[in-house]
Amino acid sequence: MHAFFVDGESVSETSNLDEVRKLHADGRMLWIDLGESDKTKDRAAVDELLTGEFNLHPLVLEDIWEDRALPKIEDFEAYLYVLVHGVRMRADKNVHAEIELLEVDIVIGQNWVITHHHGAECIGQVRQSLQRSPKSLKKGPAWVLHGVLDHLVDDYLPVLDALDAQLDKLDEAVIHHAGTPTGHRILSRLLSLKRTLQGLRRICVQQREILLRLSRGEFDEVPQQAMPFFRDVYDHFAHVTDLTDSHRELASNAIESYLSMQSNRMNEVMKTLTMMSTVMLPLTFVAGVYGMNFEHMPELKWHYGYAFAICSMAAVAIAIVLWFRHKKWL
Amino acid sequence: MHAFFVDGESVSETSNLDEVRKLHADGRMLWIDLGESDKTKDRAAVDELLTGEFNLHPLVLEDIWEDRALPKIEDFEAYLYVLVHGVRMRADKNVHAEIELLEVDIVIGQNWVITHHHGAECIGQVRQSLQRSPKSLKKGPAWVLHGVLDHLVDDYLPVLDALDAQLDKLDEAVIHHAGTPTGHRILSRLLSLKRTLQGLRRICVQQREILLRLSRGEFDEVPQQAMPFFRDVYDHFAHVTDLTDSHRELASNAIESYLSMQSNRMNEVMKTLTMMSTVMLPLTFVAGVYGMNFEHMPELKWHYGYAFAICSMAAVAIAIVLWFRHKKWL
Amino acid sequence: MHAFFVDGESVSETSNLDEVRKLHADGRMLWIDLGESDKTKDRAAVDELLTGEFNLHPLVLEDIWEDRALPKIEDFEAYLYVLVHGVRMRADKNVHAEIELLEVDIVIGQNWVITHHHGAECIGQVRQSLQRSPKSLKKGPAWVLHGVLDHLVDDYLPVLDALDAQLDKLDEAVIHHAGTPTGHRILSRLLSLKRTLQGLRRICVQQREILLRLSRGEFDEVPQQAMPFFRDVYDHFAHVTDLTDSHRELASNAIESYLSMQSNRMNEVMKTLTMMSTVMLPLTFVAGVYGMNFEHMPELKWHYGYAFAICSMAAVAIAIVLWFRHKKWL
Amino acid sequence: MHAFFVDGESVSETSNLDEVRKLHADGRMLWIDLGESDKTKDRAAVDELLTGEFNLHPLVLEDIWEDRALPKIEDFEAYLYVLVHGVRMRADKNVHAEIELLEVDIVIGQNWVITHHHGAECIGQVRQSLQRSPKSLKKGPAWVLHGVLDHLVDDYLPVLDALDAQLDKLDEAVIHHAGTPTGHRILSRLLSLKRTLQGLRRICVQQREILLRLSRGEFDEVPQQAMPFFRDVYDHFAHVTDLTDSHRELASNAIESYLSMQSNRMNEVMKTLTMMSTVMLPLTFVAGVYGMNFEHMPELKWHYGYAFAICSMAAVAIAIVLWFRHKKWL
Amino acid sequence: MHAFFVDGESVSETSNLDEVRKLHADGRMLWIDLGESDKTKDRAAVDELLTGEFNLHPLVLEDIWEDRALPKIEDFEAYLYVLVHGVRMRADKNVHAEIELLEVDIVIGQNWVITHHHGAECIGQVRQSLQRSPKSLKKGPAWVLHGVLDHLVDDYLPVLDALDAQLDKLDEAVIHHAGTPTGHRILSRLLSLKRTLQGLRRICVQQREILLRLSRGEFDEVPQQAMPFFRDVYDHFAHVTDLTDSHRELASNAIESYLSMQSNRMNEVMKTLTMMSTVMLPLTFVAGVYGMNFEHMPELKWHYGYAFAICSMAAVAIAIVLWFRHKKWL
Repeated sequence: MHAFFVDGESVSETSNLDEVRKLHADGRMLWIDLGESDKTKDRAAVDELLTGEFNLHPLVLEDIWEDRALPKIEDFEAYLYVLVHGVRMRADKNVHAEIELLEVDIVIGQNWVITHHHGAECIGQVRQSLQRSPKSLKKGPAWVLHGVLDHLVDDYLPVLDALDAQLDKLDEAVIHHAGTPTGHRILSRLLSLKRTLQGLRRICVQQREILLRLSRGEFDEVPQQAMPFFRDVYDHFAHVTDLTDSHRELASNAIESYLSMQSNRMNEVMKTLTMMSTVMLPLTFVAGVYGMNFEHMPELKWHYGYAFAICSMAAVAIAIVLWFRHKKWL
Repeated sequence: MHAFFVDGESVSETSNLDEVRKLHADGRMLWIDLGESDKTKDRAAVDELLTGEFNLHPLVLEDIWEDRALPKIEDFEAYLYVLVHGVRMRADKNVHAEIELLEVDIVIGQNWVITHHHGAECIGQVRQSLQRSPKSLKKGPAWVLHGVLDHLVDDYLPVLDALDAQLDKLDEAVIHHAGTPTGHRILSRLLSLKRTLQGLRRICVQQREILLRLSRGEFDEVPQQAMPFFRDVYDHFAHVTDLTDSHRELASNAIESYLSMQSNRMNEVMKTLTMMSTVMLPLTFVAGVYGMNFEHMPELKWHYGYAFAICSMAAVAIAIVLWFRHKKWL
Repeated sequence: MHAFFVDGESVSETSNLDEVRKLHADGRMLWIDLGESDKTKDRAAVDELLTGEFNLHPLVLEDIWEDRALPKIEDFEAYLYVLVHGVRMRADKNVHAEIELLEVDIVIGQNWVITHHHGAECIGQVRQSLQRSPKSLKKGPAWVLHGVLDHLVDDYLPVLDALDAQLDKLDEAVIHHAGTPTGHRILSRLLSLKRTLQGLRRICVQQREILLRLSRGEFDEVPQQAMPFFRDVYDHFAHVTDLTDSHRELASNAIESYLSMQSNRMNEVMKTLTMMSTVMLPLTFVAGVYGMNFEHMPELKWHYGYAFAICSMAAVAIAIVLWFRHKKWL
Repeated sequence: MHAFFVDGESVSETSNLDEVRKLHADGRMLWIDLGESDKTKDRAAVDELLTGEFNLHPLVLEDIWEDRALPKIEDFEAYLYVLVHGVRMRADKNVHAEIELLEVDIVIGQNWVITHHHGAECIGQVRQSLQRSPKSLKKGPAWVLHGVLDHLVDDYLPVLDALDAQLDKLDEAVIHHAGTPTGHRILSRLLSLKRTLQGLRRICVQQREILLRLSRGEFDEVPQQAMPFFRDVYDHFAHVTDLTDSHRELASNAIESYLSMQSNRMNEVMKTLTMMSTVMLPLTFVAGVYGMNFEHMPELKWHYGYAFAICSMAAVAIAIVLWFRHKKWL
Repeated sequence: MHAFFVDGESVSETSNLDEVRKLHADGRMLWIDLGESDKTKDRAAVDELLTGEFNLHPLVLEDIWEDRALPKIEDFEAYLYVLVHGVRMRADKNVHAEIELLEVDIVIGQNWVITHHHGAECIGQVRQSLQRSPKSLKKGPAWVLHGVLDHLVDDYLPVLDALDAQLDKLDEAVIHHAGTPTGHRILSRLLSLKRTLQGLRRICVQQREILLRLSRGEFDEVPQQAMPFFRDVYDHFAHVTDLTDSHRELASNAIESYLSMQSNRMNEVMKTLTMMSTVMLPLTFVAGVYGMNFEHMPELKWHYGYAFAICSMAAVAIAIVLWFRHKKWL
């Protein structure tokens, strides 16, 4: 737990629970940032602080500590609880097209903010900007919320760019490799990329809704003068959502292209098989006929029987090939 | 039949029809909960009570006793009839992806509520909460209706989560098993899951409509002050409907992935067949030629005829394989 | 031709054209119901009555007598012409999924109604209800129109239920029969069912539009106080239209399921062919080689040559089967 | 060039350019109808008249003489230029599903109308109606424009009916001929019909937009009292556009049906191939084995060796057939 | 760098940075057009001018110099930054269906305009029109912006026409070449054309949005009287966007047609294979049987054994062909 409070012209930091209690009792503006260790080691003490001092509902505490798949916003009488997701590329290079969602919980009250996250960079960026200037913390909780959301939204674009780059590379590969032995890998990466983008879009649509509600003045916790800034974040995120949608459409198209090209090659393969069989089966049959062991087969005794057989085979083969030409299969 | 009425600070229960008549005549607030036994055993007596004392229309009685596939809401002059469906996973584990719809009928009048259900847990939950506090029964019929709907909507999320888990498992399986002997089972489960979700969505959309109308003050039976609570139930259910839709889309995608992957494997299978046939048919033909029984076949007498035949076969095979390489089929 | 008019407290009926003329001249409220025989036998006389006495435009008369595929509503100065379609299942059991559209023409004027139909039951139902009570005929032409439309809309639901039942049965059959010899019949019934539903939906959408315009007070012929009743009919029919849409979607899904399942079975069939060919072609080739008639083939003279050949064939077969296992095709 | 002007109670016609100049100078109401010959033979003189006397912009003249694929409306200060397309079935019976677009250019000014067309019947119909009554020419240029558009829109319905009839015939044929040798022709006609309808729809959507703008009073050249009439034309054309859309959907469906049925027949074909190969290949292999020329093959010397071979072949065949039955392929 | 300023009744040009500074200090209306050489050679000096004299934000400078994939508009307090894309066909004839996007950056301030581009013709066209008349430069920066956008939008139509012509040619080719050896090239060109159109549409939709915002008076830099002109540009571009969409749909259709036709030919190919195999395999088997070397095969000794064998083969072949006829495969 790190608690930040304005101390004259700079921002001070403390990890002492009692000091936090005293600061809160003094009505000082406070930001409490919870990390992983608070969940595992000091949970009992922190829980007591949050429910006792800040009156957080036990269900909110549970939502904070556990991972939730869907964003949400809940307005309680004394505070507003916001759950949003940041995003980053998964570091593990063996997993293709996989992104990681980073849950960020934010509760803003009268003159305090509580945040919880593991790994989301946006919180760190807000902390750094606070060290440069305590302005946003002084102005109020809504401004801290805005800072967190602003940085969180900024993280989406690089991820979408990375996915776009992957898509472009795969799209290129489709033309050359659909229906070849490496095609299977391309197709399964495209399918997984599409799923990733669909999942991301689902999150985005709901998160955009939350940002819209924040920017529309639905909540008392967001003061009138902060709304244009939230509107800005919303605009930015609406653009992100549009991009996600358009990327998803591109992935669908690449898959469609893959299947089209493959169907085309399949066609070629089948035609090869058909032509080979159609030429070879009659020839083999003729050979089979003259391989029969009947005692009375006049052709077998002819001096030019063999030549005749070979020639008739050649004639059959040529006739079939001409028929193929006529059918425009060749 | 169980009838509940407020008795001072607690809720009393009776199954005596005459007592119910008397309570109703006294203008006491009443909740009559009908179960399966009322339909099969005591139907005549119960019917008489409902039509005689509460003036229910015979068509409403029929709707209550029979199973109806679609939700509906009907406003009569003296009462409001609501038919909604709860949902739960079918207990029978042999049937995959199958959910069970639980019909709940609710009629609310001036100062009485009549409910009928078989198996829906939401009614039991409201009864339990009444035993803790008779508040909602005291406040009026609309509050009992709200309690039932609230619990009923709560039952949807676990079911959707269970279906989501199944979808995830199947989606995973698609990549590895599409086009293999186990694929057939995966595909038919996906198709059935999609149908289940589509059916569920149809119910949801109509039920959401009913909740919307309840929360908009269209019916006199729902007092002004209860509307925010119905609005809350509506919001909750709108979220459920969205989830159903998004799950359905995921199922469609998984099916599409399955077919794409399978088409890819089919391609591989066909190529194997084509290559095998294209190599083997000419060789078999050559063998067939030298198996002919013509008397005059000079090659047969050559000392190295056999070796020559084998070598020419090998040459043909190598040429075809090289041609495949050139075509990038290998 | 049957003409109905209010006669004190009951409704009287006449088929006499002159009486109709007299009643109309007296300004009596009149309902003239035309049937098939009026079109074929008495057309000239009836036409004269309609154009002379009721001032119907010749084009309206033509629309009345001929079959029109699309519903329409046309407002003339003195009267309103409405063309709608009822629906019923075709009686002929040999034709699957086939419904029959029943055209109903209604013209309402100041104090008269003219209807024409062949086979639509809704007219008969309104006549029956008139025999019980002349109320709607007394109230005015719009109320007769409402009665006809109300009964006409009621006829849609049983038809949709019947189509739904057929869909359910076919949907069930898809899982078990796609790709089997009976599959062809299922697919063609599904395709025809989908076409039927699409045709029905087209009619429904346009008919709903007509009902909406009637319920919005666009026409002077519909008095203010009748509008809620027309609104009710509209609501009812909007529900019918939604159902048609949802059934159509179900049919599309069943077709999609059919094709998916079939593609799956096709895959299995192709794999069987490929495996059989891949195992058998090399074996046949080996047999072919030792069937060649070269004079100098050392193996043929070996004592264990035959056993050697059989064993090498077995070895080839086993190797190929193992390769299939490795490929997970078995 | 034909110029029409009101001459007392009748409409007179002239082809003399100087007379036209004089009539225009007199401020007489004028309609100048240009045909093909004006473009090819008299273009210079006509151009001079149009630019000199009527101040047409050179770009408008170019739009009039050349063929333009897309409808447009352009408002100049002194006149309004409208480019619309009529439609008719192509007379050449060898080309299926082909319609012909007939460009009509109309310029309306203060008291003159200039039209240009080749082959569109709507102009001729307006000319005929003028010969009966000079009313519309007297009322003003907007009324001539309305007459032309009204007749032009009327030409769409018969064309759509003809396309619908073709669609119906093809749809019927799909069930019986998909996957048969005549199927190819049906498919390519369906594809071309769909393209035709899509092209027609594109024109319709833009033309409807133009009619909407004309009926909304966007242009000064259309007087207030003419607007209901333009609105009527717009309504009519909106219906045409809807029909085009619905026909296009029917064509898509027919194509989908074709592909579904064909995929079904393909399945049957592949199963035939697979079963034939699966039965025949092992039998041929057995025959091949006993056709080998090893010196020591004991079976060959058995007295019942031949019968034994035939029986074992039959046994293999029966086993495979039974396996097919088990697999439900038969 | 070329700077233009109004000098009495004509427009003068200068490349001298100091002169530009002086003109700006004098409050003279200025247009500074940056080219490629400013980015590579004189960037430091130009950057200093733009940030020092015109207060451009460093991020704007970066956006100007770098290539950005998406259009944008950003309103700063003292100026408005617009990034749009022109389009032209790629000159390199080896690349089919490839268009080139030409980025144009425009910054308009109080009394100055800064543009940057490489290769976009619209800037040159505005410069030429300025040489004819300094009117737009005199009127203000918004009029220069309008001129640039107007010419830029004009460049889209010829490109769309060229793509349309390609589509038409490919669409024609689909009918004749789907499933033939040249089909592969047609399909891959169609797929790439579709991708091009989708990319173009994405740009168009966002650019249209920017034009809409410019024409709605959202920005102070655009004066009231200029808005109708921006509205005109917007209307024009909305038409371009619609065309892009409709072309994209045509490309999708052509691909669908290709796959349909190919599937049809595949069907024919498979039927050929199946029929050939089904006729030939049994015949080959019969020949194989009489090629067996059993000592006791009575048929082999028959005098007409050979004829009998040939006749029975013919009988089998005829039976199979008749069966095909019965199945309507022939």
